[in-house]
Amino acid sequence: MAEINELDLNAQKIIRQAGQNAHDKMNDSYQIDTKTNYTDLVTTIDRENEQLINEQIRKIDPDSRILSEEGLGDRQITDLHGHIWIVDPIDGTMNFVKQHNNFAVMLALYIDGVPMLGYILDVINNRLYHGQRGKGVYVDKQRLHAPADLGLKESLLAMNRTLTLGGTPALKKIAQEAMGLRMYGSAGMEMIGVITGQLGGYISNLKPWDLAAGRMLAEELGLVVKSIDGSSINVLSSNLVLVATSQVSRDIRQIIN
Amino acid sequence: MAEINELDLNAQKIIRQAGQNAHDKMNDSYQIDTKTNYTDLVTTIDRENEQLINEQIRKIDPDSRILSEEGLGDRQITDLHGHIWIVDPIDGTMNFVKQHNNFAVMLALYIDGVPMLGYILDVINNRLYHGQRGKGVYVDKQRLHAPADLGLKESLLAMNRTLTLGGTPALKKIAQEAMGLRMYGSAGMEMIGVITGQLGGYISNLKPWDLAAGRMLAEELGLVVKSIDGSSINVLSSNLVLVATSQVSRDIRQIIN
Repeated sequence: MAEINELDLNAQKIIRQAGQNAHDKMNDSYQIDTKTNYTDLVTTIDRENEQLINEQIRKIDPDSRILSEEGLGDRQITDLHGHIWIVDPIDGTMNFVKQHNNFAVMLALYIDGVPMLGYILDVINNRLYHGQRGKGVYVDKQRLHAPADLGLKESLLAMNRTLTLGGTPALKKIAQEAMGLRMYGSAGMEMIGVITGQLGGYISNLKPWDLAAGRMLAEELGLVVKSIDGSSINVLSSNLVLVATSQVSRDIRQIIN
Repeated sequence: MAEINELDLNAQKIIRQAGQNAHDKMNDSYQIDTKTNYTDLVTTIDRENEQLINEQIRKIDPDSRILSEEGLGDRQITDLHGHIWIVDPIDGTMNFVKQHNNFAVMLALYIDGVPMLGYILDVINNRLYHGQRGKGVYVDKQRLHAPADLGLKESLLAMNRTLTLGGTPALKKIAQEAMGLRMYGSAGMEMIGVITGQLGGYISNLKPWDLAAGRMLAEELGLVVKSIDGSSINVLSSNLVLVATSQVSRDIRQIIN
């Protein structure tokens, strides 16, 4: 496992550097483009961060493949063989642009489909949530405990706008029954909420780079990560995912069934 | 105006002290009670903070009346004559309890019904947003500029759970048309979002203590504060309120009409 430890230390340096780059440039004038529609943004800083991360990953782990949000990674990854790094250069780009707050950089390493390393950097608070499979989860140098196993009515739940406004009646009932509903606009910040116990659950449609790091950290803490319909997670495609305590997961299952 | 300046300086000390008290005790074991239902919490720290604030206000402004959330203020305030202090000892009590984050202490002075002084303390970040009518709005010692006058499709909007899940079709359309939707669970934190330009608007059902300070600060910055149906704000009762840029307010008016 020496190699994994070395990759871990290097990955921590890489993500900190990308966070610093985003922080340094968030007040500059940079180009903002839209992708699928006016709510789907990408900036030159996303692309710069992705290039910075990908280049360094290729140096520290040359035989790996990279799946990254803005398209600078490897094309056509269709199997999970070997080392796959999954990169979100800025998660919550809209918050980055509009708030200069509440955004993250995320990175994960999956080996033969198994989540091995995960990193979520809360850039503004300069806190790195990181973990290695079987070795626990840390914020910076402090180990995180597993969150208390509270149920839905004792927990805050995060759910995205699309599901809250337009989801199934069952999803709306789940949002209604939680003690409170929250919406932060960044999968990374919402994952941090669940792994620290500030949220009891998070439901969202997530792309591979939105989910990879948070899934690794959440599973390491004994939290439930699954498709909302109960099917297994597909690492390479979008999933409607629940990340939650066991009890919240059971309470939600009862509402859905 | 010497008196107002002195009240202002004293009020800043009082709110900082209440914030410190909440911060010091948030990890202690304190009693949590529910009010109207399981989502409506009050703790002994709310009550302690209210007592601390009210006692000191009575010292610095003995002829004033106090309207405060947890019932330690003056009973039956039915007119706006003279000095009325409006107190929210912990805004976002659920966040205080569940997150140890994203909560505020709020205080305002209305004189003959006119908002004169306003304070929102973001406790965890130790940032005091404060202002005096005609003298500008500050975060700590730094003056805030008026936010850019962006429209709904260029802005993040905050709206509470009740309105998002169960509001009118027009409210849901507003939530859908915004560039993004956010839900923080604290009127104070959401007001801070609007006055700093991180949010373009905020729509919620607000009690007097939820609204008083944020209204003062928002109006001082030239933002729109009004009932969503266009009627004038009643300082002493609940209002369905919009706090927003002028352009967001016009865009919302178009959807509602």
